[in-house]
Amino acid sequence: MAKFLTSRSEDYSQWYNELVVKAGLAEPAAVRGCMVIKPYGYAIWEKMQRQLDDMFKATGHLNAYFPLLIPKSFFSKEADHVEGFAKECAVVTHYRLMKDPAGNGLVVDPEAKLEEEYIIRPTSETIIWHTYKNWIQSYRDLPILCNQWANVMRWEMRTRMFLRTSEFLWQEGHTAHATKQEALEEAKKMIQVYAEFAEKWMSMPIIMGCKTDSERFAGALETYTIEALMQDGKALQSGTSHFLGQNFAKAFDVTFTNKEGVLEYVWATSWGVSTRLMGALIMAHSDDNGLVLPPKLAPLQVVIIPIYKNGEALKKIGLKVAGIVQKLKEQGVTVKYDDDDTQKPGWKFAEYELQGVPVRLAVGERDLENNTVEVARRDTLTKETVSQDGIVEYIKALLDAIQENIYQKALKFRDALITKVDTYDDFKSLLENKKGFFLCHWDGTAETENKIKTETKATIRCLPFDMGAEEGKCMVTGKPSHRRVLFAKAY
Amino acid sequence: MAKFLTSRSEDYSQWYNELVVKAGLAEPAAVRGCMVIKPYGYAIWEKMQRQLDDMFKATGHLNAYFPLLIPKSFFSKEADHVEGFAKECAVVTHYRLMKDPAGNGLVVDPEAKLEEEYIIRPTSETIIWHTYKNWIQSYRDLPILCNQWANVMRWEMRTRMFLRTSEFLWQEGHTAHATKQEALEEAKKMIQVYAEFAEKWMSMPIIMGCKTDSERFAGALETYTIEALMQDGKALQSGTSHFLGQNFAKAFDVTFTNKEGVLEYVWATSWGVSTRLMGALIMAHSDDNGLVLPPKLAPLQVVIIPIYKNGEALKKIGLKVAGIVQKLKEQGVTVKYDDDDTQKPGWKFAEYELQGVPVRLAVGERDLENNTVEVARRDTLTKETVSQDGIVEYIKALLDAIQENIYQKALKFRDALITKVDTYDDFKSLLENKKGFFLCHWDGTAETENKIKTETKATIRCLPFDMGAEEGKCMVTGKPSHRRVLFAKAY
Repeated sequence: MAKFLTSRSEDYSQWYNELVVKAGLAEPAAVRGCMVIKPYGYAIWEKMQRQLDDMFKATGHLNAYFPLLIPKSFFSKEADHVEGFAKECAVVTHYRLMKDPAGNGLVVDPEAKLEEEYIIRPTSETIIWHTYKNWIQSYRDLPILCNQWANVMRWEMRTRMFLRTSEFLWQEGHTAHATKQEALEEAKKMIQVYAEFAEKWMSMPIIMGCKTDSERFAGALETYTIEALMQDGKALQSGTSHFLGQNFAKAFDVTFTNKEGVLEYVWATSWGVSTRLMGALIMAHSDDNGLVLPPKLAPLQVVIIPIYKNGEALKKIGLKVAGIVQKLKEQGVTVKYDDDDTQKPGWKFAEYELQGVPVRLAVGERDLENNTVEVARRDTLTKETVSQDGIVEYIKALLDAIQENIYQKALKFRDALITKVDTYDDFKSLLENKKGFFLCHWDGTAETENKIKTETKATIRCLPFDMGAEEGKCMVTGKPSHRRVLFAKAY
Repeated sequence: MAKFLTSRSEDYSQWYNELVVKAGLAEPAAVRGCMVIKPYGYAIWEKMQRQLDDMFKATGHLNAYFPLLIPKSFFSKEADHVEGFAKECAVVTHYRLMKDPAGNGLVVDPEAKLEEEYIIRPTSETIIWHTYKNWIQSYRDLPILCNQWANVMRWEMRTRMFLRTSEFLWQEGHTAHATKQEALEEAKKMIQVYAEFAEKWMSMPIIMGCKTDSERFAGALETYTIEALMQDGKALQSGTSHFLGQNFAKAFDVTFTNKEGVLEYVWATSWGVSTRLMGALIMAHSDDNGLVLPPKLAPLQVVIIPIYKNGEALKKIGLKVAGIVQKLKEQGVTVKYDDDDTQKPGWKFAEYELQGVPVRLAVGERDLENNTVEVARRDTLTKETVSQDGIVEYIKALLDAIQENIYQKALKFRDALITKVDTYDDFKSLLENKKGFFLCHWDGTAETENKIKTETKATIRCLPFDMGAEEGKCMVTGKPSHRRVLFAKAY
């Protein structure tokens, strides 16, 4: 085998860290809490980006780019926002280095101190709403539907590759609207776009809902979220969309003249997903052999490996495979023929399993005689021998089947870990022993929410959209509750 | 007219600044020397990115992502590099803000001072070669062909939108090779990719060549460049590719075992183009009416405007146009039917001219009767009436013709401004009166180069690849010279 992984059952966290590095997705960087996204990891992120970008454009959004640095004073303008973001952040205070007069390399030039410090953006609401002020005068200037693909920085204390890093890549949509209704619809539309992307492209089932007051984005009136379940039974918040009301418009004095000629504050949303989705993708599907990728996000969908005794056999196989490769490419399938002579087939099998290539074909001399190919599926680790006739159609259908099977498997796993619980004792016990999502009655107070968080580390992931009213009693206080909410321990 | 521009002849610099803002490409940001790239400007940049990225991938490169912040000490490791970059840069010294005890908003928390400061990357050689050290052990690990799309920051004193901003967007390729020969070939291959992109996609003729010692990238042994000529007769360096020798491998101790089992330092290249290309594109082709875009980079290639007296006429035109729009879209042409009722056709004409939309169709009631369309070209500002039969093929051919015509026009302009000069007096006089590129003999010394720069502000743009040997005498010192070099005043 090429590179052994610690098994998930042995140490899930260790398995994840090893997989990220060994599959060539990312590695820790020389900068505190940051990572290097390696070419294979970045190729998956690019596929995510491309699809999300297409979906944003199909819903009328345009990309733009706003500055990396934000003047410190901007953060003081929205009270909740500053609480959430301005504390742990990278601060630029100087703009020049100089040679150390004492001869110790480079030092900061004290003469080059900035009058006002800049913050590396942890999120861009402030600089963007400062900019929008100049773009908006009348209702004719609305809506503004902008998105930005960018790097952001939050000085996190505990970091993990993809899941929580000081610097990460993301997209942040920032929209401006003439009415509350329109902004609310926008925020909901975008959480639905994220849900569709998660389910159809990442093969990852999610639960969509509202955040509670205390879990909301700093500065938002309403935060919508998609929550996924990882294989260790912990939840992962995978994307959020915020209805910001008029908070940022008021903070940055952004008004417009409505159709009736009256001056009003503008309504806002913001929404984002990040390289955290890479962590979600890895943890949702992968196994002890390595990565398992849904075909729609796999940089390489099919690998073909020759099994041969000598150069002559390799040549014959190569000729046969060339036709299959060409036809697959014509059908838009990404395929590689790996005839590297320096590695054995077994090593290659393990390597491509580690990388999560959805379909592996092996072609040997016997296959040439029998007009067959051995087809191995990464998701089920099963193999079968099929005819070369119609192989292209077979593979195309197989890729679709794998995409769907990965989703169904994750769905089955997830659904088996949604538990309705009615007593706090059961909740605490099942949280340790069964894990997963719990649907419980809660009295709606931040006090109870905090108590549960402190005592169990479980948080309210969301108030799911698709759960109806149900009368009950808070599992902690016994006070009346009108609906169940979704709890879990989370990343 | 929608928005008047200062004419180029009146004030070229003012014309440029107005055009950038009024055409919705970019605007100055609240951060010193930075800009906001607005949706229309960003859409052009995205088209550039997509094409360049395809070309990088076609030449075997993969994308990756390295940290934004670079530890200060990394810059001290390569002596020339630190001279070139570490001086004017954004320095992160702290990682937390706090409420001012004196009540004045937020202040930097003195407790949260970093042990070692970070620099916001001005370019990423140092952090990348630090990373490559772990990726490279044997010749089997080579070559590494990585590219990164990223933001970088250089604390420029005099800034201009797109041409020189403190923060800008770019791509930086960083490759590692086993031999000098291979690295040299890579550096040359990539300058050729840039040249092809400039000529075929931007319709911008360029001159390719080597930089002199004093104009080289900080840390490079050889810098290749493409130089374009702007309409004011000034040159613009549009892309560079560097052969870095073993400088960074030595600075970061990156060695590999070659096929013979001997330890060697790795050979390196780096190459980049930036949002500066947006400035080049604007200044190369645009006119006093606004932007002129080559169709291959135009976010919107065709706009169709109805000319009507009443709602009934508009409806009829709309029905007719719908068919044309659909057929154009099927052919991959980006097209918009602008039936906005709140603006007059004349206003729209001016607006789309300002935005540089290559082809404008106008359809009126008479056109319906006559089965015709009025077709206006942005590049020549000419109009003609053509039959609706075969209109799609007509437009497709027209877009190609416009792409080519813009190139030919720029080429003719450029070629008329390449002057062979043999005396320093002529040089100084023509530099003021004729402007453009000058091919002159130079004695090859940095001293003479500096003298010319100080006295005339002209610099050696490059030693063109396609100019053969020619014996002559340096126009300044009279010393022998074996080739002509290319001078110009430059951005």
